Amino acid sequence: MTTDNPIDLAGSAALLARVRQQQPLVHNITNYVAMTISANALLALGASPAMVHAAQEVEDFTSIASSLLINIGTLSPAWVDAMRLAARRAVQLGKPWVLDPVGCGATPYRTAIAAELAGLKPAIIRGNASEIMSLAGAAGAGGKGVDSTASSEAAIAIAASLAERSGAVVAVTGAIDYVTDARTLVAVDSGDPLMTRSTGLGCALSATTAAFAAVGTPLAAASAALAVYGAAGRSAARSCKGPGQLPAQLCDALYGLDGALLARDARITTRKL
Amino acid sequence: MTTDNPIDLAGSAALLARVRQQQPLVHNITNYVAMTISANALLALGASPAMVHAAQEVEDFTSIASSLLINIGTLSPAWVDAMRLAARRAVQLGKPWVLDPVGCGATPYRTAIAAELAGLKPAIIRGNASEIMSLAGAAGAGGKGVDSTASSEAAIAIAASLAERSGAVVAVTGAIDYVTDARTLVAVDSGDPLMTRSTGLGCALSATTAAFAAVGTPLAAASAALAVYGAAGRSAARSCKGPGQLPAQLCDALYGLDGALLARDARITTRKL
Amino acid sequence: MTTDNPIDLAGSAALLARVRQQQPLVHNITNYVAMTISANALLALGASPAMVHAAQEVEDFTSIASSLLINIGTLSPAWVDAMRLAARRAVQLGKPWVLDPVGCGATPYRTAIAAELAGLKPAIIRGNASEIMSLAGAAGAGGKGVDSTASSEAAIAIAASLAERSGAVVAVTGAIDYVTDARTLVAVDSGDPLMTRSTGLGCALSATTAAFAAVGTPLAAASAALAVYGAAGRSAARSCKGPGQLPAQLCDALYGLDGALLARDARITTRKL
Repeated sequence: MTTDNPIDLAGSAALLARVRQQQPLVHNITNYVAMTISANALLALGASPAMVHAAQEVEDFTSIASSLLINIGTLSPAWVDAMRLAARRAVQLGKPWVLDPVGCGATPYRTAIAAELAGLKPAIIRGNASEIMSLAGAAGAGGKGVDSTASSEAAIAIAASLAERSGAVVAVTGAIDYVTDARTLVAVDSGDPLMTRSTGLGCALSATTAAFAAVGTPLAAASAALAVYGAAGRSAARSCKGPGQLPAQLCDALYGLDGALLARDARITTRKL
Repeated sequence: MTTDNPIDLAGSAALLARVRQQQPLVHNITNYVAMTISANALLALGASPAMVHAAQEVEDFTSIASSLLINIGTLSPAWVDAMRLAARRAVQLGKPWVLDPVGCGATPYRTAIAAELAGLKPAIIRGNASEIMSLAGAAGAGGKGVDSTASSEAAIAIAASLAERSGAVVAVTGAIDYVTDARTLVAVDSGDPLMTRSTGLGCALSATTAAFAAVGTPLAAASAALAVYGAAGRSAARSCKGPGQLPAQLCDALYGLDGALLARDARITTRKL
Repeated sequence: MTTDNPIDLAGSAALLARVRQQQPLVHNITNYVAMTISANALLALGASPAMVHAAQEVEDFTSIASSLLINIGTLSPAWVDAMRLAARRAVQLGKPWVLDPVGCGATPYRTAIAAELAGLKPAIIRGNASEIMSLAGAAGAGGKGVDSTASSEAAIAIAASLAERSGAVVAVTGAIDYVTDARTLVAVDSGDPLMTRSTGLGCALSATTAAFAAVGTPLAAASAALAVYGAAGRSAARSCKGPGQLPAQLCDALYGLDGALLARDARITTRKL
């Protein structure tokens, strides 16, 4: 963790360099579907991922990790217990943790667990518009399983209020991504629609966000993660004739990304709310 | 669901168009190994996959889904409980569900669970010859772990009797795939032997079948799924020097498949039994 | 299982041919992250993988399998119970089993389980230097999550003493891999640093080792697995601009590997300890 990071492309490139240099150990409690691509994205980025979920060891593992990701994609009670233990230990030790409330709104169980976890002081919450709106208790949040039915623009005000209430930086991803701490709004233009046709790419973005959270302040880390990951995705999509090669191309793009490629494929703008 | 669908290539192309247009939400309770490729095949096809397995939420999720897939590849008691709950809810709500009895016959536990689930009114059962023969209680079903030791031809009569008894359409996949409701036998010639050298491709076919079951009657849906998926696989195998690129190429082929490509790489014939 | 196999490239090629001919059924109890690549590597190699973990069926499955792999990457108590049952059954039936003590040393829970399993007579133990040093109870074993902080050279003497104590052949992988039964030391030069940037490739190597253990004596099997898998990895890395394509390229290389390619991309040397 450091003091203030500038929220622009140069600042994002600086945080990427810091991830590569420090190789943070990122503790992931994430869903089965996204584990492999999440680990591969983190390795390609230069971080050191581990997936550890047993209640018997999560606190010990969080203690040696640089940051923590909790993703509720494939929930079950034993895993929820581990998520609580890990989140509390992270906060206790001053380590940042990221919440990905996958499918929040799809079932009452899922919505309740997401809301409970959002109350455990995550540094960053990252979701699509339907998930963030549902997590904030907004009426008519919609959602179709784990896919959003709302645009990210529609969720900006709600994201800001969730940020205010939870103390977390909230990132709403969509065609344009928005990040806010309730005072500043960052818009990130990167990524490609093809990314919605390959499973776990949103989850792997949240894992990437946890890697950046290990080396920067939450608002700058979330913005940099979106810019870097989205630029890599946009670049990767150009090499693809369909979604099949996208995960591999995305990892290669993350591995090879530099400031020039970041500037080509991402835009960051900020304004006060 | 609709009334009758023609069981030929044109009918299959029409069902594919309907999947892409309706983007059915497919609820998967499937094995760990095949989750990623199953989700990716469904996304490439144009469906909306979700993997949800906790007993606390499976019924709620089945209620919002268009169809359900249950695959017993990596069984455990808690998951079996969820499978029972989800299957019953699907039947109660008139939603089609597909059973993939992976490795049926390999252990007594697996065989018993598969038989129990087959009694819960699946719309379609999809397996290899050894699995279907074992599920039907045929003597000498064989099987080697999760791979078949019998040909699909050898299982036709047994598949028809299983269809009669269970009320499900039964699909037996192999070099040639056979689908039957006990009255009609559909033979689908598509696919490529290389597909047996990449894990989870049979499981992802079952997930694809669940997507088609959301938009067509069981016999037509199963036949169309086999034709579409197998044509994509045959096309994909042509671009591969080994099995490594096959999952990605298969997704790209599913993504780009049209009537002309389907006609090139699949044959469907039907006869009365 | 056979009597002595020569520990050199020709002997390794002969064991590879035997894997392809016998297609051993390899029972995997492994971590969620590595399941897909492990199954795909085994299929590409010519073996028949299955992932089965329920206590209700693991003993029955081990009974029909040719060999067993136990990998503790994503531990939980129910899985540990299954690991114990499967390992004991394998030993009882004289079937070789391979232990991959992933992340041993990272948490007390993990270290204790790894040590307990190492006491259940594995034929082969395969890990990185930090894992092997931690498993052997060496002071200052280090490790960063699941990644090693020690070189494989530093672990040779400790590996030999672990081999002596456990009765297992111990393989320590790193820039150069070392295999020992406490009397002979085999050094295998193969692989590529890019392999550390793609998740589960060490785990899939352990699965590959289990396939070779089904057809050869432990010291020869472990050495051949390292040579074959590492040669495939080295060849695959040449075709990659980053880690993204590495899993697919590795599978293609395993699928196409022959004696000439093995001789190009692997070196094996042996000496007495």
